[in-house]
Amino acid sequence: MGNTFVSIIEIIGTLAFAISGIRLASAKQFDWFGAYVVGLVTAIGGGTLRDLLLNLPPFWMQNSIYLTVTGIALVAVIVFGKFLIRLQNTFFVFDSIGLALFVVVGIQKSLAVGYPFWVAIVMGTITGAFGGIIRDILINEEPLIFRKDIYALACIVGGIFYWGCYTLQLPDEITQSIAAASVILTRFAAVKYHWGLPVLHGNDDESN
Amino acid sequence: MGNTFVSIIEIIGTLAFAISGIRLASAKQFDWFGAYVVGLVTAIGGGTLRDLLLNLPPFWMQNSIYLTVTGIALVAVIVFGKFLIRLQNTFFVFDSIGLALFVVVGIQKSLAVGYPFWVAIVMGTITGAFGGIIRDILINEEPLIFRKDIYALACIVGGIFYWGCYTLQLPDEITQSIAAASVILTRFAAVKYHWGLPVLHGNDDESN
Amino acid sequence: MGNTFVSIIEIIGTLAFAISGIRLASAKQFDWFGAYVVGLVTAIGGGTLRDLLLNLPPFWMQNSIYLTVTGIALVAVIVFGKFLIRLQNTFFVFDSIGLALFVVVGIQKSLAVGYPFWVAIVMGTITGAFGGIIRDILINEEPLIFRKDIYALACIVGGIFYWGCYTLQLPDEITQSIAAASVILTRFAAVKYHWGLPVLHGNDDESN
Repeated sequence: MGNTFVSIIEIIGTLAFAISGIRLASAKQFDWFGAYVVGLVTAIGGGTLRDLLLNLPPFWMQNSIYLTVTGIALVAVIVFGKFLIRLQNTFFVFDSIGLALFVVVGIQKSLAVGYPFWVAIVMGTITGAFGGIIRDILINEEPLIFRKDIYALACIVGGIFYWGCYTLQLPDEITQSIAAASVILTRFAAVKYHWGLPVLHGNDDESN
Repeated sequence: MGNTFVSIIEIIGTLAFAISGIRLASAKQFDWFGAYVVGLVTAIGGGTLRDLLLNLPPFWMQNSIYLTVTGIALVAVIVFGKFLIRLQNTFFVFDSIGLALFVVVGIQKSLAVGYPFWVAIVMGTITGAFGGIIRDILINEEPLIFRKDIYALACIVGGIFYWGCYTLQLPDEITQSIAAASVILTRFAAVKYHWGLPVLHGNDDESN
Repeated sequence: MGNTFVSIIEIIGTLAFAISGIRLASAKQFDWFGAYVVGLVTAIGGGTLRDLLLNLPPFWMQNSIYLTVTGIALVAVIVFGKFLIRLQNTFFVFDSIGLALFVVVGIQKSLAVGYPFWVAIVMGTITGAFGGIIRDILINEEPLIFRKDIYALACIVGGIFYWGCYTLQLPDEITQSIAAASVILTRFAAVKYHWGLPVLHGNDDESN
């Protein structure tokens, strides 16, 4: 997975994540600026937390492309709002590709800093999933991901595949492609077959 | 803008931001401790995120003045609560001056670390606006700023003026004064003439 | 307080904090993954913010025990849910012990980095109390701590006792034990005698 290839995928992922944030913000009647911030935070929030935890310079402060892409996403939603709705399935595909890439980047960066694999898998999951959690906090909703778990579990599955390929000493490109594919396939399968984790309940009557 | 001058303005800005947080907390019936924390976070939240992103030591951990000023703000609200309400316009002035100073400090710090100007403008905006976002998250409200955008746009306008003066190689004091004035004037004009960005809507019927 | 002793207490504290998060998540009908994340964040959130502010590597990325203990907490709530409710008082004891340990660790780490005592006391309080604040943000509730202040005040009391013993140059083990005991006793006494700080109100009729 060469740098150029990663960059194109990364832009697609950023665009998909930013649009997801902007559309949720629009349902809350945020103005253009608020929608832009929610879109940006959805797209870069996970990677920013990862970089802070790894003590790396935040990735989006190294290249203005992420702010630009979020701006393009905002214009797209303003101009093509109604039309974009019909592309729901297309966005699901882009969003899943973006998620897969974010997971792979998170794992790579953590290993490069010298962390063990379990930290890398957590960082991959944070990179993929944390942006959506901050998005939901900003629009004052309970994080969707806590009820729609396969999203984050797909990140963990991708991390385990990455670890397997890495242990087998497969070439980097193959390892990354298999890990990314496992994220995407897990998510597609979860939606198609309605996979979900059990809900935790029965403690409703208690106070803490 | 000498260090002493900055410090006095910074204290006024901290006081205004802390009082804004404490008053919103009081409307939520928080106790004194909760109100203090909300006030403190409003005052130092933006600068703290900026320092974490720039990998600098958090500014408020270098000098206890920020915790002290927040304590004074709490006592002031407890003692003069009703009276302070009538000073609404005075606070708007202080709050705007504080905002302007926070933006200038955020830009200065980012440039000093070697970041390009677009990062500095984002950091100036984060310094000025992020405290209010955390405040609203803590009191469990949708961030006010996402519906009252000129606040953050004033930070961006200030950043652009800073950049213009910097490009023209004006002396630091002049550059900072012009940038600060542009923040304050933009905000005053926005309130006076009811400037606002369009609301993003029409996507309400979709699920994500 | 030797390292082994600290570790056992730390595990008990982590377990108690994680269970507190998981039980609140269960009242919100989160699924197992969501409950795990809320439990983990409750347990490690305070220490993570402390380490970011002190520019230290996040403690839970150095040892997988914290993720493992949170997993055990989740299994315990799933298997023994109803039974655990009757242990409310036992958990209060564990939770207080955990809180006391977290405060002591936060103070130690800050002093080791060279910060003055007032920063160490703030860091001790953040270590003990911030996890619960993020927990409440994630489940979309106003932070409990802002209405139930003695929790955080107990951290501050512990910090002041630590400072007193430290000033008297008592041995580390004694200093830490006295500080921890003062956190626990303050919390017990606050609950037993219904201590609380005044609520801040009377500003309800104002807008900001």
